[in-house]
Amino acid sequence: MRKIIIGVMGPGDRVTVADRQNAYQLGQLIAQQGWVLLTGGRNVGVMDEATQGARAANGLTVGILPSDDNNAISEAVDIAIITNMGDARNNINVLSSDVVIACGMGAGTASEIALALKGNKKVILLNDNEESKSFFKKLSPENVYVVNSPSEAIKIAKDILVNRQV
Amino acid sequence: MRKIIIGVMGPGDRVTVADRQNAYQLGQLIAQQGWVLLTGGRNVGVMDEATQGARAANGLTVGILPSDDNNAISEAVDIAIITNMGDARNNINVLSSDVVIACGMGAGTASEIALALKGNKKVILLNDNEESKSFFKKLSPENVYVVNSPSEAIKIAKDILVNRQV
Amino acid sequence: MRKIIIGVMGPGDRVTVADRQNAYQLGQLIAQQGWVLLTGGRNVGVMDEATQGARAANGLTVGILPSDDNNAISEAVDIAIITNMGDARNNINVLSSDVVIACGMGAGTASEIALALKGNKKVILLNDNEESKSFFKKLSPENVYVVNSPSEAIKIAKDILVNRQV
Amino acid sequence: MRKIIIGVMGPGDRVTVADRQNAYQLGQLIAQQGWVLLTGGRNVGVMDEATQGARAANGLTVGILPSDDNNAISEAVDIAIITNMGDARNNINVLSSDVVIACGMGAGTASEIALALKGNKKVILLNDNEESKSFFKKLSPENVYVVNSPSEAIKIAKDILVNRQV
Repeated sequence: MRKIIIGVMGPGDRVTVADRQNAYQLGQLIAQQGWVLLTGGRNVGVMDEATQGARAANGLTVGILPSDDNNAISEAVDIAIITNMGDARNNINVLSSDVVIACGMGAGTASEIALALKGNKKVILLNDNEESKSFFKKLSPENVYVVNSPSEAIKIAKDILVNRQV
Repeated sequence: MRKIIIGVMGPGDRVTVADRQNAYQLGQLIAQQGWVLLTGGRNVGVMDEATQGARAANGLTVGILPSDDNNAISEAVDIAIITNMGDARNNINVLSSDVVIACGMGAGTASEIALALKGNKKVILLNDNEESKSFFKKLSPENVYVVNSPSEAIKIAKDILVNRQV
Repeated sequence: MRKIIIGVMGPGDRVTVADRQNAYQLGQLIAQQGWVLLTGGRNVGVMDEATQGARAANGLTVGILPSDDNNAISEAVDIAIITNMGDARNNINVLSSDVVIACGMGAGTASEIALALKGNKKVILLNDNEESKSFFKKLSPENVYVVNSPSEAIKIAKDILVNRQV
Repeated sequence: MRKIIIGVMGPGDRVTVADRQNAYQLGQLIAQQGWVLLTGGRNVGVMDEATQGARAANGLTVGILPSDDNNAISEAVDIAIITNMGDARNNINVLSSDVVIACGMGAGTASEIALALKGNKKVILLNDNEESKSFFKKLSPENVYVVNSPSEAIKIAKDILVNRQV
């Protein structure tokens, strides 16, 4: 039976300490809910931290990889989907997620938020980039949620899942 | 830890009774080995049968969907990856599979075999289309295996996994 | 010999009158420079206006289409590239453009700007969405240019082309 | 106005002398008809020969590139579309072509033929691989044409264009 998938999107490089901690904790909390974690799958930054967190909590982890380089995959990924299509895979990341949580900010992450909104997905923002919050909140007031902690993100994700039309 | 993924590729329509039976049995046997089953994810033909077979044997099932139509997904898919990129997703199907088993034949299946060979994947053919066997065997003698039953396909898949260079 | 391609990205719906006028004028000016115009190819909004503008100035126009629906293609497109991969094609739009001009704003346009920046492309913003300017300028100060008119956009594009490393 | 695009698909390596000559001549003849030539865009094998042939006859050439490596593009490509999505771009090659001509044979070429047939495109085969002709002709009797020379391929392409439903 189809499992609930929560996507955690975030940068691979230029990641802050807070981003890393948030990502790891998001992974843990998602796994504890019994949800599948989906990330961009690489062994760096937010992707790796979230996947490691979910792994530590015995969750199931999916990585949607941009390349076919086996050495670039997070060791905590269970299901590696090899797209070999670079950043065009960002659209797959968000379309495959029941809820998208953006942790941290960068150009790739911004593209994932924007593609998610284009695909009518709900997006939860967890970062300290005020300009990103203003921009995306204005772009799609009803589909963007701004939170201040991983636990708040999970609470909103639950609400979204409860209220969605299937 | 990264799980072994076996892809079963086959047509959605114009499927023979033998194809259906083979697909279901392949799904069962793959699950019994503890491997993850990957298919094109739709609720028709070989994709659906293989996924149902794996489900019946308590396996984990991944579907790589061509569209974002929730009503076109096999009910036995656990992890639905929504590509929304039509048949271009066929390349993802094969790149994400440690071994590709082609069950039955059609234009989509032929594209998956060819893309798998282009990506240096091993492909096991299980069908009664003699022209396909002659063609693909000639195209890539070392990477194409012809079998006559699901159990033989599983045996070859095991050999491939044992001997591969990691 | 490889031609210079300038991409004009912008929304298909919720387009302002100013966006339409700017898009049409951008198309004209791009054609007058002897550059090829590239857009998302649809027969609506900024895509259509820019393409019509380039057509009116006898330019060559390329459309990178998200679907295989022949009725959704701008009539002024000369070269229709059919991706059938939805918004994942946005990455192709920007990677294929020597310079990206974003005219107007929406979720799809935001994804194109972000993907362009991820791909180390220069992006020129022409819109009245102040939050977008603040956000993207902060995200990539060296690769984002804010302009107030089509002619200013063309001037910046020329500078970028002159100074780029080939 | 939308131009007619003829795709010439063929291998980049392991190309025979006859394949090269046929590809070059196909490019010339396509350009002489006033059609746009589309290939996989790389500077090797059938792709390069066809593009050079069309260039020599003053035709317009489009290359759909698998990577973003500027050094891998045929010098005779006018319009370079950068997909950066590897062999998944093969689906774009065929969907964007009004008629597909397969010159020579290899795994990539086989995938393009199969994807073209899946997308209901007509495919003309020009090669000396008998198994490929038997296989694809059986797979889709109404959409596969077998020819023995570039000029015969052009004649069939004309017939297809005349008779198609727009």
